[in-house]
Amino acid sequence: MLGARTVVDRVKTLRADGQRNRERIVAAAMKLVARDGAQASLEEIARRAGVGSATLHRHFPSRRALLEVVFRDGVAQLCRRGGAQPGKDPGAELAAWLEELTVYTATHRGLPIALLAGPDGLSPEEVCATDMLLDVLRVLVKRASSTGVIHPRATAEDLMLLTNAIAVTTENDPTTAKRLLRLALDGIRA
Amino acid sequence: MLGARTVVDRVKTLRADGQRNRERIVAAAMKLVARDGAQASLEEIARRAGVGSATLHRHFPSRRALLEVVFRDGVAQLCRRGGAQPGKDPGAELAAWLEELTVYTATHRGLPIALLAGPDGLSPEEVCATDMLLDVLRVLVKRASSTGVIHPRATAEDLMLLTNAIAVTTENDPTTAKRLLRLALDGIRA
Repeated sequence: MLGARTVVDRVKTLRADGQRNRERIVAAAMKLVARDGAQASLEEIARRAGVGSATLHRHFPSRRALLEVVFRDGVAQLCRRGGAQPGKDPGAELAAWLEELTVYTATHRGLPIALLAGPDGLSPEEVCATDMLLDVLRVLVKRASSTGVIHPRATAEDLMLLTNAIAVTTENDPTTAKRLLRLALDGIRA
Repeated sequence: MLGARTVVDRVKTLRADGQRNRERIVAAAMKLVARDGAQASLEEIARRAGVGSATLHRHFPSRRALLEVVFRDGVAQLCRRGGAQPGKDPGAELAAWLEELTVYTATHRGLPIALLAGPDGLSPEEVCATDMLLDVLRVLVKRASSTGVIHPRATAEDLMLLTNAIAVTTENDPTTAKRLLRLALDGIRA
């Protein structure tokens, strides 16, 4: 028979293992969804996370449940990086974040659609992270504007529209997305 | 009884009237399709052209027949204006043509779809005018490059992708389309 202390320790270990597994599943899912979209193979996600399919299904009973976490975590990470302490070059920080946003949107286009679908789908408001992202962008634009490193007509709203336009039409082609964004950043005119 | 000469004159007059009517119908259709898309009212087109519905139907037995002419004429006009004799400012000429292209694409998005649809629809090659437009753009870019007024990385292909991206996502909102294009022309960075 195990002592009470040993049981508590074992439960703690199991919980920590479970948390680690969950994190590894989400990390693997984020990578594969970025590559393969909402239809990414759950078997490959489990394999990359180093867990069995049963473990994946215990943590995420449905594809939708996993996709929802991937989506929320992805947007949260984008917001966190955009909202980080400012460095010395607000123009470069804005440009780098716009690139991240463009590439993220270009490679995750299927995700909101998958989360909206079906009777138990999320609402458009839940899926549309534009407000959160726009708040981050406003801060970055304000910071860059105050040092005069961006065009006076470059509003956060228009930058969101432009990055979205590029992302939507270069779906799953982040190389082209980045190239077009850089062209817009530098300006077509010399 | 009319003399042979008078009959010939009358036939000529009728033909000229018919040609004028046809031109007025196409001109009215171009304006209304730009405003209302492929579903523009045929009655309103006839009214604006100053002809009856029967005359419109004699010239264009189906909506598709009229839309096809509107589409081909629109692209031809764009190409003609882009291919006009160069003026003194190749950078401004390129910018103006890119704006025309963006606004045209933003306001005529429904047209290729309408022409593709159905068993007697046009082929994607016929509807896709990208090759013709790209040829015009290449000339304008080359001219602007030779005077160093555009960014060395601004290729005709990328400009086509970028204007298309802006147009596709600002459908029926030419004001926003123009604003985003200008931002890309000037550059987001100051």
